[in-house]
Amino acid sequence: MNSALIYDRQIFIISDGTGITAQHLGHSLMSQFEDIDFITTTLPYIDSIDKAQEAVEKVNLAVSTNGELPIIFATLLNPEIRNIINNSKAHIYDLFHAFLAPLEKVLKKKCSYTMGRAHGVTDIDSYQKRMDAVHYTLAHDDGIKLNGYNKADIIIIGVSRCGKTPTSIYLAMQFGLRVANYPLTEDDLSFRELPKCLAPFKKKLFGLTISSQKLHSIRQERRPNSPYAAIKQCQKEINNVEKMFNDNQITFINSTFHSIEEISTRMLDSLDIERTVI
Amino acid sequence: MNSALIYDRQIFIISDGTGITAQHLGHSLMSQFEDIDFITTTLPYIDSIDKAQEAVEKVNLAVSTNGELPIIFATLLNPEIRNIINNSKAHIYDLFHAFLAPLEKVLKKKCSYTMGRAHGVTDIDSYQKRMDAVHYTLAHDDGIKLNGYNKADIIIIGVSRCGKTPTSIYLAMQFGLRVANYPLTEDDLSFRELPKCLAPFKKKLFGLTISSQKLHSIRQERRPNSPYAAIKQCQKEINNVEKMFNDNQITFINSTFHSIEEISTRMLDSLDIERTVI
Repeated sequence: MNSALIYDRQIFIISDGTGITAQHLGHSLMSQFEDIDFITTTLPYIDSIDKAQEAVEKVNLAVSTNGELPIIFATLLNPEIRNIINNSKAHIYDLFHAFLAPLEKVLKKKCSYTMGRAHGVTDIDSYQKRMDAVHYTLAHDDGIKLNGYNKADIIIIGVSRCGKTPTSIYLAMQFGLRVANYPLTEDDLSFRELPKCLAPFKKKLFGLTISSQKLHSIRQERRPNSPYAAIKQCQKEINNVEKMFNDNQITFINSTFHSIEEISTRMLDSLDIERTVI
Repeated sequence: MNSALIYDRQIFIISDGTGITAQHLGHSLMSQFEDIDFITTTLPYIDSIDKAQEAVEKVNLAVSTNGELPIIFATLLNPEIRNIINNSKAHIYDLFHAFLAPLEKVLKKKCSYTMGRAHGVTDIDSYQKRMDAVHYTLAHDDGIKLNGYNKADIIIIGVSRCGKTPTSIYLAMQFGLRVANYPLTEDDLSFRELPKCLAPFKKKLFGLTISSQKLHSIRQERRPNSPYAAIKQCQKEINNVEKMFNDNQITFINSTFHSIEEISTRMLDSLDIERTVI
């Protein structure tokens, strides 16, 4: 299995649910060991004895090229299945088990050990709110629809291709927020005031900027050698947009070296929007 | 603080990074205690001594209505900051600390304790691939663009408003997959064969279906009392689409009671697509 690949460790994510929680924490932990090459196999919905036994077989077959045992990050609620997985020839980190027992003591309650609570539709209203936010955000992407900004939680503004769309969608998907975004055109930027459609919603505005070099290279890919992609054009737009943000006291962030997760976190923090746990 | 609200516990998510990992695991753990009302405050980027001391003050002020101590889920890499937070009057679960020391032993390496590795742009290529996937997915939403299916990782098919769009975007955002989706119209469904534009890509197809009752209520909101939203119309389309899936051996899932996370997990499992850890 994977014998042609060279790697230091095989990681398994094993869950009786979607495995999303285990994947997140496992990834965060392993990202702290930069010089280790690892490959990851995710085994979700291990929710029967047969599946658990199959998973153990897979784990036991996977020895890395240097003969080291695999590592398992598990979120297993069913004790019978956990017992089976615990017999794998691997180092096992059971993320639920490590915390649920101490939490039970502190909360003086038994936990329900119910699968699918974290990423299932347990609260229909909040799930529906989140899906509605995704639809709202798509309908208000890239200035398509200028009405409805009164219903927005955030309106992201910036020049074309500075990263507004992925950030908007991430915020909608992850936090159930209604996020519109509006591309500031050269026309808009020839004034120092905010465009009329945005002015009434100043408190919801958040600016994105980007280095002109990166903007140039992104635009080059889209429309090679066009006036739109020219480095001078990019510099001019970025200068003007930052001036507009400063003149109007719009908080902004430079997306050049930041991921959508980082941009979103800073945005919510700065606009003082509480993150709903989803 | 929040004295007007009645709740059993105040939860704090405290991180020197985005707090996304702590939020995920904290949410998963707390969702196992159904009958506890809790409110959550996220304090990201606690990356200086001043900010850490401010965070401790906030925690110490927050005693729930029944006088119980708050709970902290923390991902703190800086030992100095961790020490300060550890002095809060709270039950503290440090998610990194619990696993990093044992992992160091097993991996025989020191971990880097570098902030921002999990959700920053540490690997520019894979981050760019993910952003490209989001743009591809938006450009191929709802059958807008029929060319380019050869570049898709997955093509989701189903009737209008059965949940294709949010699922596609989730897959792109979370796993960096290029996901097109195509709405099967009544015209398409009057044949038993797959539409011509889809037939060459049978291996990438995944079907979504939904209960006709739920479809009816979703469509009612969009176009109240239209022929499109009529329950009979919904029943007919759902019958025909499931027939088409069965006749053409297209794996499908019913979205009625499943979240986009669950649908996506089952989809990747069934199409045997390995989940990239992001």
